[in-house]
This record gives sequence, C-alpha cells and structure tokens, in this order.
Amino acid sequence: MSKEKEFVVTPWEVRGEIDYERLIRDFGTTKVDTELLERIKKDAGELHLFLKRGLFFSHRDMNWILDRYEAGEKFFLYTGRGPSGHTHLGHLVPWMFTKWLQDRFGAELYFQMTDDEKFLFNQELSLKTTMSFTYENALDVIALGFDPKKTFIFSNVEYVKTLYKIALEIAKHVNFSTVRAVFGFQNTTNIGMIFFPALQAAPYFLPSVLEGKNIPCLIPASIDQDPYWRGIAREVAPKLGYYKPAQIHNKLVPGLGKGGKMSASEPETAIFTTDDPDVAVKKIMSSYTGGRDTAEEQRRLGGRADICPVYHNYEFLFVPDDKELKKLYDDCKTGKMLCGECKMIFASKLKPFLKEHQKKREKAKGMLDKFMVKD
Amino acid sequence: MSKEKEFVVTPWEVRGEIDYERLIRDFGTTKVDTELLERIKKDAGELHLFLKRGLFFSHRDMNWILDRYEAGEKFFLYTGRGPSGHTHLGHLVPWMFTKWLQDRFGAELYFQMTDDEKFLFNQELSLKTTMSFTYENALDVIALGFDPKKTFIFSNVEYVKTLYKIALEIAKHVNFSTVRAVFGFQNTTNIGMIFFPALQAAPYFLPSVLEGKNIPCLIPASIDQDPYWRGIAREVAPKLGYYKPAQIHNKLVPGLGKGGKMSASEPETAIFTTDDPDVAVKKIMSSYTGGRDTAEEQRRLGGRADICPVYHNYEFLFVPDDKELKKLYDDCKTGKMLCGECKMIFASKLKPFLKEHQKKREKAKGMLDKFMVKD
Repeated sequence: MSKEKEFVVTPWEVRGEIDYERLIRDFGTTKVDTELLERIKKDAGELHLFLKRGLFFSHRDMNWILDRYEAGEKFFLYTGRGPSGHTHLGHLVPWMFTKWLQDRFGAELYFQMTDDEKFLFNQELSLKTTMSFTYENALDVIALGFDPKKTFIFSNVEYVKTLYKIALEIAKHVNFSTVRAVFGFQNTTNIGMIFFPALQAAPYFLPSVLEGKNIPCLIPASIDQDPYWRGIAREVAPKLGYYKPAQIHNKLVPGLGKGGKMSASEPETAIFTTDDPDVAVKKIMSSYTGGRDTAEEQRRLGGRADICPVYHNYEFLFVPDDKELKKLYDDCKTGKMLCGECKMIFASKLKPFLKEHQKKREKAKGMLDKFMVKD
Repeated sequence: MSKEKEFVVTPWEVRGEIDYERLIRDFGTTKVDTELLERIKKDAGELHLFLKRGLFFSHRDMNWILDRYEAGEKFFLYTGRGPSGHTHLGHLVPWMFTKWLQDRFGAELYFQMTDDEKFLFNQELSLKTTMSFTYENALDVIALGFDPKKTFIFSNVEYVKTLYKIALEIAKHVNFSTVRAVFGFQNTTNIGMIFFPALQAAPYFLPSVLEGKNIPCLIPASIDQDPYWRGIAREVAPKLGYYKPAQIHNKLVPGLGKGGKMSASEPETAIFTTDDPDVAVKKIMSSYTGGRDTAEEQRRLGGRADICPVYHNYEFLFVPDDKELKKLYDDCKTGKMLCGECKMIFASKLKPFLKEHQKKREKAKGMLDKFMVKD
C-alpha cells in the first residue's frame, strides 16, 4: 500500500484519504448499485440527492428490508450521535437522509445520544458536558423536521433503565476477545468502554422488546460506525432471536482541511450549526481546496475539484441541481474559476442555509419534550 | 502448601478448608483484635455475638470509622446480595450483624441486589429469574427487622439510572488489566461481567453524591467479596475525591457438607430460609459432621467439634450462651454425645428459628414498598 493510500476508519478515528471501494471489501458490506437504487426509487417514490450522488454508497440487507416493506411489514430506523461537541455539517448528512427515510417509508426513528461513551472515551470531557451536548445536538435533529409522533431521541444516561436490560442480554454473548478484535480495545481500555458496545446495540432490539414481536431495523449512518453492528449487533441478534439490523452507509463529509472527515476536534475545519454565519464564512475562506500553488498555474492547469472539500460540499449538500454542479465542476477543472471566487459561491449558499437552520434550531428549544424519551 | 491446605476464595468460588489467618495476609486486611473489640463495645454499648465469637475476624479502617463516629460524624452501611436463589443461613450472618450496626450506630443502610451480575455470570439463569430473587431475598432482609426509614434496598437493574452515572465515573478509572488481576477475568469473560465491578462499587459513593458531601461508608460482608473494594473501590475512591470505604469481614458459615461455605449451588448442604422446617431437619440429619467412623470409635476418641459444621452453626448462630456452648463442645470432644443426639439438638434449635423467620418473612411481603428504592 503506497503511503498516499494509507487511511484509518474506526468509530473513534478517521484519518487519511479514504478508499471507499476498499472499505466495502474490508468491512464486508455491499455496494449500493443501480438495481438497488431503482428499487428504492420505486418504493420511496423518488431518489434522495444523497443516493443519486453516491454519498450513500454501501449497505447490508437493504433488499431484505425492502422485501419486508413491500410485503406490508413496517420497519424502524435507528441512528445516533456521540455528543462530544456541537453538531457540524458532517453530522447532518445521515440525519437528513434519515428524515427522508422516515417521510418516505413512514418509519419510526430511535435516535441514540451516546453521552456515556463520549465521557468514557475522552479524558477531557465531564459527564455533565456530554449530557449537555445531548440536548444541544438534539436541537439540530429536531430542526431537520422529524415527525415528533414517530421520533424518539434519548440520552443513554437518562434512558439507561430501559436500555440496560437489553444490553445485559447482549453483553452475555460478547466477550473481551470479540471487542478487542472488533474495536481494537486493549488491556488499558477502561471497563466502561469495554461494556459500551452492548449498550450501543440495545436500541436495535428495543422496539421489538417493547412491542413483543420482531421488527426489522434499518440503520442509516456513516461507514465509520460499522464495527458496532458488524461485530456486535449482527453477531448477537440471531442468538437472541432478533433480526439482524440492515444498514445503509454514507461516505464521510470531508472537513475544510486536507483529508479525513469533518471533525469537531479540528474546529477550524468544521462548520458547526451553531457557528455565526460570518465566522463560518471565514472558515470557508481559509479552507483547503483543490487549487494550485499560483493563480497562473491554476488558470493553465485547472483546479482539482475531485479532491476539493468545497466541491464535495456542493456535491453532497449545497448544489442539488445537476447542471449547476456540472458548471461549477467544469469551471474549476478548466481553470476558468479560481478558488477565491468559488469560496464566495460556497459562502453565498452556506450563509442562508445556516441562518435557516439556526432559526429552526431556536424553535426546537420549545419542542424538546415532544422528542426526548427518558425512563 | 500441603494439599489439605489448598483453598480458593473469590467472589464466585469458595473451595477447600479456609485458612483465615492466611486470607488476612493475602488480602492485606487487619485482624479484629482485642483492642478494636473494646473500642466497638464502648461505642456500641455492647458486643455482638459474632464479634465475641470471632466470626467477624478481619477489617479495614475500622478505627478510622470509629474516629469519625466518635467525632460526631455519621457513617452509612453498605452490603448486598447476589440474588441467584433463595437465602440460606450463611447469607443471614452478615445481614444480622448489619442490623445490629444500624441499631447501635444509627446508620443508614444501602442494600444492593446484584441481579445483573447473577444473570451475567450464570448461563442457566434468566434476568427474570434473578430479578424475582431480588424480591424473594429482600423479604429475608426485611424480616430481620431493619428500620424502614433508614434502609434502602435496590435491584441494580431497577436502580441503574441512579447508579450508572456513578459507575461511569468509576469505570473511567478502571481498565481491563486491573479487573483481570483483581477478579481473574479472562479474554473469554463477557463484557457485562467486565463492567460489573464499576456498578457494584457505585453504592459506596451514592450517599455522598446524593447529599453532596463526603460520607464515610462501612461495609460488613463476607471476606470472599473483598476483591470488589480492595481492587476497585479503594483504588478509585481517592481519584474521585471520596473516602475509601471501611470494611469488616466475616468468616464463611460452613455448609452441611465437607469444607467450603454454605452454598445455594449445593442445596442439600444449605438450609434455606424458605425450607419447610421438616425438610431442613432432614438436611441436618444427613449433614457431614466431625464424627468418627463408628460409634465405638467416637465414644473412645471423641468427636471433632472444631471441623464440624453443626458445631460451627451453634457457635455462630444458635447457641449464644457461652456455658451451653462449652457443654456441647465438651460433650462432643469427650465422646459423651454422639452426632445423632447432637443433630437432634440442632434440629430443636433450628425449627423454631425457621418458623419465626418465616412468619416475619410473610409479614415482610406487605412492607416491600417501604424498603425498595427504584429510579
């Protein structure tokens, strides 16, 4: 493997330039192909931009879930968030897609805030802090327009009485060797982190436990979270008599730095939903791009849109119109448009997006009670 | 070490003839000596039979707890039970002593039912079963006469929302190497068991968390449970800013078989509080004793009271009168009294004890609400 191709993708670390084709092979998932897209389009009545643009690129058992759905059986959605800080654009991607799935398939959503995990994993974070980010992040989820009747957001710490019983059933079937192999845990890993995968997996079975019958589960989430369901949920589900959860995985939205995903630990390269729009624009102006060393060189050789985080943000989030996207791509590649101009365009799209989201986020403060479930 | 001296004492296994002097050295505890007994007598106003007879033989920081008490500071008691089956006489011993401590020192008691642990540890037990034994065992605790205003009995599963936050703080300071060394956990140990010591330790700090100030804790319990506080609570307490819990340890009440402790896993050698008194008497009649192979030999050589579980039951529970105990001992050792006669005496003491306890246990069914705390 050449040095350029080195990358790491785990639930706690994403580094390097990610080869998504290789991830599919390494993780043993299946590529989202044209046939599956057609089927989703038929069942959903339309195709979400994230599917058209290949952002959701990998899956497990999607055809099985659609078999069930087409046979009149309901499924539920599960996804979540590790509340270690404010929400950034990269977090919104799977949630926006989840919202679309809820609308199109009439599915209930269980949304897990792993405030326990983030406390256990990060020496710097207090439990009080991660629990407060549970609520901050929940505002962003609610702002996306989920149906309060069908959406259950919970903090692990505040919902543990419900989750713990299921987690115990899971934990009885998972030993240290397994979590060492799946998550790379060491002898120095704290015993809270070692147990956490059992609690993380509990929501997959929660609706089945609550309703007393097996209900299929679909998990839309970033590919880096895959070890949880590959190594734990899918292994244990049959032993407990539950369905294995199906999954659909998105690529990681790149940050404004070079390589990796948008990460809260590099705040200058991440656009937070709580950023003042003018601050966000400043981050854009300092963004890494696919530009050349000099304007002259770029006019001559063209920019490298394919490795440019600004372009990926257009592709994934901000330019749904295909023609407009193609023009931006071509203007970059031909050297017609330089990075400064392009960043201005990005800023002009981001600012109203942020303002609108922040308005909805403010409104969400009065709706927390409708969405949050506790013991 | 000679073969006869081989023994094992862990929270999950007690085997062989226990050398208590060696346990004190191995575990690093302190012997309960005459000086400490005098001090307890002064503070409590009397000395409990279990102290006089050396059943509570080992401790940690008892003088520190009494310093605090004498300085007018209150302490609380913590003990518990792994509800894997019905309560037997061996379980009652630390609880009876705990009741005496509550009365004499006016202390609140937090009583933990580790229904999660017993489920995780035992392949045969369902969570439903261990949770139902939580309530069965609680009846025995209540039957001993604890003060409902000062006694808080809880199931880990039903009180986990309160305990989990504290357990997370503990777990962050305990890694796999530590629990492997302290409890002998392996790579094949399930991740629930690996986390459990953190939840087990949570009640030591619970009153301090609830009241927002440091409150000393005294743990009366069997010596086999020592690893929990030696390896976990005492190590972590200073890191979280809490006092280390003090402890006083009892010897294990022998079962009616040879060696080891009274154990629910050998029901024919254990007298359960729920046993029909006539069934209990039959168990006594089949008990292992310190008797000789033939009556002739026993008349000639005398019995071996010192290794006889029947005699130990007199010593620890059923014969508080020193003169009566001495007569039983002498009559055995001189061969004057054979085992059959002695067992009849045991039966005559056990039957009314069981009947009385069962009456109180029945009454306790109406009092569960006063004692059980839940989230």
